[in-house]
Amino acid sequence: MIDAGPLGARPLQPLAIALGDPAGIGPEIVAKAWVERERQALPSFFAVGDARSIATVWDGPICKIGTPDAAAAVFPDALPLIEVEDAGEIVPGSPNPQGARCSLDALELALGLTRNGAAGALVTAPVSKAQIYDAGFVHAGQTEFVAERCGIAPANVAMMLAGPTLRTVCITTHVPLARVPELLSVELIVARTRVTARGLQRDFGIEQPRIAIAGFNPHAGENGAMGSEEIEYILPAIAQLREDGIDMIGPLAADTMFHARARARYDAAVCLYHDQALIPLKTLHFDESVNMTLGLPIVRTAPDHGTAFELAGQGRAEPGAMIAAIRLAGQCAARRAMLS
Amino acid sequence: MIDAGPLGARPLQPLAIALGDPAGIGPEIVAKAWVERERQALPSFFAVGDARSIATVWDGPICKIGTPDAAAAVFPDALPLIEVEDAGEIVPGSPNPQGARCSLDALELALGLTRNGAAGALVTAPVSKAQIYDAGFVHAGQTEFVAERCGIAPANVAMMLAGPTLRTVCITTHVPLARVPELLSVELIVARTRVTARGLQRDFGIEQPRIAIAGFNPHAGENGAMGSEEIEYILPAIAQLREDGIDMIGPLAADTMFHARARARYDAAVCLYHDQALIPLKTLHFDESVNMTLGLPIVRTAPDHGTAFELAGQGRAEPGAMIAAIRLAGQCAARRAMLS
Repeated sequence: MIDAGPLGARPLQPLAIALGDPAGIGPEIVAKAWVERERQALPSFFAVGDARSIATVWDGPICKIGTPDAAAAVFPDALPLIEVEDAGEIVPGSPNPQGARCSLDALELALGLTRNGAAGALVTAPVSKAQIYDAGFVHAGQTEFVAERCGIAPANVAMMLAGPTLRTVCITTHVPLARVPELLSVELIVARTRVTARGLQRDFGIEQPRIAIAGFNPHAGENGAMGSEEIEYILPAIAQLREDGIDMIGPLAADTMFHARARARYDAAVCLYHDQALIPLKTLHFDESVNMTLGLPIVRTAPDHGTAFELAGQGRAEPGAMIAAIRLAGQCAARRAMLS
Repeated sequence: MIDAGPLGARPLQPLAIALGDPAGIGPEIVAKAWVERERQALPSFFAVGDARSIATVWDGPICKIGTPDAAAAVFPDALPLIEVEDAGEIVPGSPNPQGARCSLDALELALGLTRNGAAGALVTAPVSKAQIYDAGFVHAGQTEFVAERCGIAPANVAMMLAGPTLRTVCITTHVPLARVPELLSVELIVARTRVTARGLQRDFGIEQPRIAIAGFNPHAGENGAMGSEEIEYILPAIAQLREDGIDMIGPLAADTMFHARARARYDAAVCLYHDQALIPLKTLHFDESVNMTLGLPIVRTAPDHGTAFELAGQGRAEPGAMIAAIRLAGQCAARRAMLS
């Protein structure tokens, strides 16, 4: 399910990868993904960030480029990089404010290059939330920042997590679980499920997507015996979505909808809160989960893990999720290029 | 993890299996478990319920017995059964009030025979909650009924779900998710985690159990940035439990604690709400999950699925979870018999 199908054509432009926090594992896994470029048949990409953050943890060839159009020619022989200087010292595992600002500058530049069409898609390595909040970042995360820069209202983007056998989407994300009942609404569920259906069509080529939606309560509430969110919000949302022609299943008991036979029944599972979507995804596919923002005018993916400061600088970081994020971004960008 | 280790000795007494709703899949999976008795090296057991509920779906040998001590001699050649008559018609897939009352009578008898030592352990096939509530049953489920009959306070029993590579325990169970924050307390978490530690020692033979506890909020709350239940309840509970000498890890982000490498770090995961415990367990081990009640003077297990009325009478019900429940009950009863 992490796979968006055979490539119709290579994306016209190389992908932009923002390196994330210079002291995290981002630089290392981007370099490792470049090493795997042929074996994994990855599309051309270039890094955006401070070259030192890679050189500190990797002794392979890096080639600084000025503009994205130089990336494709360089890519077979070196990792192309557009420099964004980190004003501080780079020590893997020890983040600092200059590094956090560098990660935001790199994100801003990579996003701008993707929005203006110079890059084919945006892939973001992990930033440190604690660090960027301290640096004055006012968005909940990179997803919300990207959505705002693209001019899309928050309800009209959706966070999808994709692994080899499961895709899940969150109706609510990084909020206290106790606040979820008050944040749920028919409108929000309908909006984000529509975005999901549209994303499955446009980015994954699934003409008539089958979407399962989870219940909020144990056993999906058992007709109101254990909670009313299914009756108040989920069932009316399903009715509206079916009127739109979307193939909906649910509300399903969340505990019995993620085993292998159950997963075969749908293309994506819409979940009501963060852990409902992420527990099954990461239980099954911890090392290969991709976070994809649906509803944007651009393609944006990310490996679904954090900066892992405790691992940084040891050469032991697994690049699997970054490789999957690059591959999926390339597939979706190619599909959009074909359609446009 | 579903395995409680090698059998020290066979339990002294055969296990009692309450057949559950006569119109559900209980009778069929108990018969199928008996067929597998040699290949699966199952301990002797006898069924408690109406013989017709089995004969309707299975044409193998049933031998009615009057008391449990007759079971062992019969067991190699026929499925031993203590009759509890169902006053109504038995139609697989079509439950009725008489069947619901029969399932409760069978539960009561099987429980009594286990409590007085005539049976080695209690295994319960699924009942229909909707049906037994209509019949006037006032407990939340079989677990709560068994606990009350055994004279154990609700906070001092815990529901454990066990599969081949994961055991989870619920702090709260069948309640609306929105009510969980108000139901959580340091006392409840401490009580049920102590029961878990004691159960791992007594029933699974793990001398120094390693117990992981999940956070309640996304990313375990990130130090209060996304919810305060970790700070208010979970951290103080962990401190108390450590003072008791229990090896605690957590609070862990719930989404990253159930993949294979993470599971290797603990013997059981304590979860705060139903789906947090059951999503990972059933995602990984849907056909072989055992529900075990910890904290009782008797051993009680059950297959962790429902009556599956839609499957009943077709011969297609999978006995895997029932077989696992019987095996685990036998292992735990044997271990207790050795210790006593």
